[in-house]
Amino acid sequence: MTDAADLTARLIRCPSVTPEEAGALVLLGDLLADAGFEVHRVDRNGTPNLFARWGARGARTFGFNGHTDVVPPGPPGSWTHPPFSGHVEDGIIWGRGATDMKSGVAAFVAAAIDFVRETPPDGAVILTITGDEEGPSRDGTTAILDWMEAQGERMDVCIVGEPSNPEVMGEMMKIGRRGSATFTVTAKGVQGHAAYPHKAKNPLHALTAYLNDLIAAPLDAGTDHFDPTGLQITTIDCGNPASNVIPEMARAVVNIRFNDLHTGATLEADLTARAARIAQATGVALTISADVSGEAFLTQPGPFVDLVRSVVTQETNRQPVLSTTGGTSDARFVKNHCPVVEFGLVGAYMHQVDERVPVAQVQQLKTIYQRILEKYFE
Amino acid sequence: MTDAADLTARLIRCPSVTPEEAGALVLLGDLLADAGFEVHRVDRNGTPNLFARWGARGARTFGFNGHTDVVPPGPPGSWTHPPFSGHVEDGIIWGRGATDMKSGVAAFVAAAIDFVRETPPDGAVILTITGDEEGPSRDGTTAILDWMEAQGERMDVCIVGEPSNPEVMGEMMKIGRRGSATFTVTAKGVQGHAAYPHKAKNPLHALTAYLNDLIAAPLDAGTDHFDPTGLQITTIDCGNPASNVIPEMARAVVNIRFNDLHTGATLEADLTARAARIAQATGVALTISADVSGEAFLTQPGPFVDLVRSVVTQETNRQPVLSTTGGTSDARFVKNHCPVVEFGLVGAYMHQVDERVPVAQVQQLKTIYQRILEKYFE
Repeated sequence: MTDAADLTARLIRCPSVTPEEAGALVLLGDLLADAGFEVHRVDRNGTPNLFARWGARGARTFGFNGHTDVVPPGPPGSWTHPPFSGHVEDGIIWGRGATDMKSGVAAFVAAAIDFVRETPPDGAVILTITGDEEGPSRDGTTAILDWMEAQGERMDVCIVGEPSNPEVMGEMMKIGRRGSATFTVTAKGVQGHAAYPHKAKNPLHALTAYLNDLIAAPLDAGTDHFDPTGLQITTIDCGNPASNVIPEMARAVVNIRFNDLHTGATLEADLTARAARIAQATGVALTISADVSGEAFLTQPGPFVDLVRSVVTQETNRQPVLSTTGGTSDARFVKNHCPVVEFGLVGAYMHQVDERVPVAQVQQLKTIYQRILEKYFE
Repeated sequence: MTDAADLTARLIRCPSVTPEEAGALVLLGDLLADAGFEVHRVDRNGTPNLFARWGARGARTFGFNGHTDVVPPGPPGSWTHPPFSGHVEDGIIWGRGATDMKSGVAAFVAAAIDFVRETPPDGAVILTITGDEEGPSRDGTTAILDWMEAQGERMDVCIVGEPSNPEVMGEMMKIGRRGSATFTVTAKGVQGHAAYPHKAKNPLHALTAYLNDLIAAPLDAGTDHFDPTGLQITTIDCGNPASNVIPEMARAVVNIRFNDLHTGATLEADLTARAARIAQATGVALTISADVSGEAFLTQPGPFVDLVRSVVTQETNRQPVLSTTGGTSDARFVKNHCPVVEFGLVGAYMHQVDERVPVAQVQQLKTIYQRILEKYFE
């Protein structure tokens, strides 16, 4: 039997702060090759990535996705145990990556190895593990998926093993994510004297009216699986030092976390149309530029979601909420390839000093993954 | 007869850029003393000032106010004639101060001298001339008025000889001025992640709602002699570079040019009350700080205004508009002492390169001032 907790500790001892591989993918590659997996390193532009498949290409395939890179530990002296020690004491594994997400990777690697050894399926298991999820993510999971497409490799479904539970195991799984887009609004008016506003066009008045229109009412009321779309003005800047001068230019940035009622493109169209109305009323030119960092996506509840949920419920005695909250993960790339859900550990200590995880929780996660594999190929 | 145009040219030849006296007040003091005026220099903190009275202290007294300091000429090479040459050619006097306002001072000094010589009144004429109107104005006309109060000197009415006509002689006189106040609004919320706004309080949303409330409707519709109060947002600044972060602080500056329905204090109370409402609704603290640079004032139309207007109409064949528009002048200090109106030359070339004035216009202004004196003491 493969010990997921021990594997977690060994992975923590590889100081794989993005973009360093630091031995983590080599360790996993060797382990998987020994267990009969076909293993490929699919590095791109220096970013280390690992692909592993057990079973025949083209068979019915269950996939896992995760990452071995971690965020920097901060001052090592602040840690109770050194951040890359993988120290185990009183049933707790300490170190950077203990929850995000060397434990998740260790759990699905151990589950996959034991599953194919103990109950070899009529199908395939694919593991996709990147060394850049915490960084720019340009040549990480995306590179693996690009390579898979070129090779004719395919997962039918995939679990991303990111921490998904806020407090206790089994309370939450993620079936999608809100989109995120940032809009920069530039207002260009006509400079003038504050005492003679009829000779000027104040960009700040147009911008204020525009932003007030955006925040006056929610963009929607939420959908079945999503919270209402949220809009936050993150900065407004003008930099005019003279209180008797109407400035020429001002600029605001608006961040929108949107649900499946919108796309980056529909939001850009909406914001641009609103800007045109204000521009017409004020004579101030309002220009909108969009930066869409991720579209909203949803894996519709159905057999795959039900399968994961039933196993989690059985193993934890909790019925996980189907959530779409939280920040981004590589699920935003995997969802273009196949249905994807996220289930992993409790995320409480992510990115913090003294990141740590109970041994029992890692073992429970490994069991859950293995039961999911068994049930999928039943 | 005293030649106002020649006196203008002689004054221009004194390079009295604020705070330099440069001989201008000495020239005027000698001239007035020769004409039988009691003359005092009432300098304060290095700022040169001149007080001159003809007639008995305490008699019925007509006053004039003006300044001999000028703004810098800019690059002398840009001028057709050197800026301190007082060059006269083809009926035009050239140089810095030709309109603002050595000509105005020359006109009322010449008018006062000829008036008391030709038709000595049963009363007094006081001239108050400062060397700092274009600068900080802390020790200029204010210092003369303070000195007068201490000495028991008093004007019953006063004309400030600043340029008051936009295009042609006789079209406008000023009987008051809008007030000006600048308000800084500081919004302090709670920083947080743009994806989790319920854990933060966005100061930019509170500030946007606040500013939109201020600009949504005019503060008033104007009064008999004043335009509507004008409000301009002159800057909004936050400086948050991170589009996924809700900032803690933001700041806006609002400039208000207000009529006689308001004072700096009533506006501050209004803006503070509006801020309290937004703060209560949003949980964001909004702090208002006020800088009142001048209160609104009005010399009510009546015998004095009518007197000036009738003489201007008679001499120019134009009925001057009673205006309260424009930037600040020392009338804002004189109005605390006695009723004040402003009438002077055409201001078109003020503060510009090639500032210049027709000889005939200066002579016409001298005639108007002398007729006003005659009519006042009739």
